Amino acid sequence: MRIAIDAMGGDHAPKEVVLGAMEAVDNIKDLQITLIGDENQISKYLTNTSNIEVIHTTEMITGEDEPVRAVRRKKNASLVLMANEVKEKRADACISAGNTGALMSAGLFIVGRMKGIDRPALSPTLPTQDGTGFLLLDVGANVDAKPQHLLQYAIMGSIYTEKVRGVTRPRVGLLNVGTEDGKGNDLTKKAFDLLKDAPIHFVGNVEARDLLNGVADVVVTDGFTGNVALKTIEGTALTMFSMIKQTFMSSLKTKLAAGLVKNDLRGLKNQLDYSEYGGAGLFGLASPVIKAHGSSNARAIFSAIKQACHMVENNVTETIENTVDSLQLIKEEE
Amino acid sequence: MRIAIDAMGGDHAPKEVVLGAMEAVDNIKDLQITLIGDENQISKYLTNTSNIEVIHTTEMITGEDEPVRAVRRKKNASLVLMANEVKEKRADACISAGNTGALMSAGLFIVGRMKGIDRPALSPTLPTQDGTGFLLLDVGANVDAKPQHLLQYAIMGSIYTEKVRGVTRPRVGLLNVGTEDGKGNDLTKKAFDLLKDAPIHFVGNVEARDLLNGVADVVVTDGFTGNVALKTIEGTALTMFSMIKQTFMSSLKTKLAAGLVKNDLRGLKNQLDYSEYGGAGLFGLASPVIKAHGSSNARAIFSAIKQACHMVENNVTETIENTVDSLQLIKEEE
Repeated sequence: MRIAIDAMGGDHAPKEVVLGAMEAVDNIKDLQITLIGDENQISKYLTNTSNIEVIHTTEMITGEDEPVRAVRRKKNASLVLMANEVKEKRADACISAGNTGALMSAGLFIVGRMKGIDRPALSPTLPTQDGTGFLLLDVGANVDAKPQHLLQYAIMGSIYTEKVRGVTRPRVGLLNVGTEDGKGNDLTKKAFDLLKDAPIHFVGNVEARDLLNGVADVVVTDGFTGNVALKTIEGTALTMFSMIKQTFMSSLKTKLAAGLVKNDLRGLKNQLDYSEYGGAGLFGLASPVIKAHGSSNARAIFSAIKQACHMVENNVTETIENTVDSLQLIKEEE
Repeated sequence: MRIAIDAMGGDHAPKEVVLGAMEAVDNIKDLQITLIGDENQISKYLTNTSNIEVIHTTEMITGEDEPVRAVRRKKNASLVLMANEVKEKRADACISAGNTGALMSAGLFIVGRMKGIDRPALSPTLPTQDGTGFLLLDVGANVDAKPQHLLQYAIMGSIYTEKVRGVTRPRVGLLNVGTEDGKGNDLTKKAFDLLKDAPIHFVGNVEARDLLNGVADVVVTDGFTGNVALKTIEGTALTMFSMIKQTFMSSLKTKLAAGLVKNDLRGLKNQLDYSEYGGAGLFGLASPVIKAHGSSNARAIFSAIKQACHMVENNVTETIENTVDSLQLIKEEE
């Protein structure tokens, strides 16, 4: 198995990407990695070249680039060449911690869609209080989703969660404004009807206030709402950590307390850090494409590589294609 | 000025509602209150009847009632009679801490819409880190909003924030998936174009991760997204408090620290408690209608009464009507 990785993407590239890649080939059997990026910079950190190849390029897409235009014009950008490796079947999957929009564009226009899926979904695994985590999709690949897109997300999310995260009969919930059947806007009402007949373990509507309680293993929503939910979780958690810090710094007494719980609170912060759960899959493409968090360190890159390997080994793409295909057959027979 | 209050709505009704009402007439000049509910229960707590009248009824709408049906069928429910007082001009505004959906139905079908507003918006003030707070609307009155609804929310929110919260030139933001112009789904793209020409201080798109940082004084969104954002903030904050509690209970050392910061952390919890900021206005109705938080204590009821008084005194309804009316005239001239 070979994974192509954009060595120049992310806040700590290429160093942490290279370190993560070396850790991966050391620990995962039969893994080969292609790093794409500036060889001069990469070679500084690449102390072990067994099973790691480098494709040299100096062009790269930055966070400031307009995604679609950048992918079209910067033909030699590390992210674009990475997607080409997958398209040309020289790699089985690819990973970038760079510009999310550009990765979605490269996924759609270069790697291409999976048969039977209308729109890919960006799908991170988010933390839950019990440490299990849940898959949220879509968080922004498709901001004007239709009911059938939500059905496809549910199928993709369910298969991924079963095959890669090892959850038996994953509970799939629909993010909505109330838990009762019949609640919601036009989109969720129609999606609800499709989901209850789908070959998944649909647990009905779930509310945003229960997301971190682990109310479902897979939570399906349109890309606009999912993006808002994701960023609200991030923003609320960051604000609270900052307020807790302020509280602890407010007096001698609280500073003393801070000294006693510092390490424990750091553990809490890690528990809420979703880069611990690997990268966000861009589901619905012809091959696995993983968006690692922009702030990924070597450990997060290694997680994302393991995740990509599991997706390839467990034939996630083929299983989704076959499931969607059989649904289509049933629909045509009806 | 007279405010009608549903004495039977909320988790701590009628006790806390009655206590809050008594506190209000003691502190607010020329205020008269009509409490609607079971006189036998109300009289237990009503130790001061000056400026407080009671309309007796034993029928009530519970949290389990289906809102629209309950308002239609339970003609003598305290919430319905409360709305009638406003409709019949015997009261200038009304407040309930009961069933939110039923209050929205009673508002729409009994109190009636304001001229020029298509759909009312449920508008709570949420906490920010600096303690200023921001108005979020809509959080669920209208889950299938159109661009012109968002424009109306922006105007209503801006006028309310200026007149009642005393913010000069309130910054109005549009909740979106990115801050750049041109971002978003079909709804927010169209709403953006309307907002930039509106008679408000529009600061453009804002992201969910910046909400609690006070990125805007008024944040406009459709009722579905707003509901998800609100409940995500609540859920994340509750989960974090529960995790912090667990962390503090994990060892003797952390228990010791907990003892030292207990009061300070309680202060933090209050800072994030949005019932401190009064109730959620149901904007766009012919008279002010306030939804107090279900868990309201006397203090929160008193806040909601002050809020209703400010809306009446500062002619919020008339100002919104005139502003929307003048916009309509401009549109017709064009």
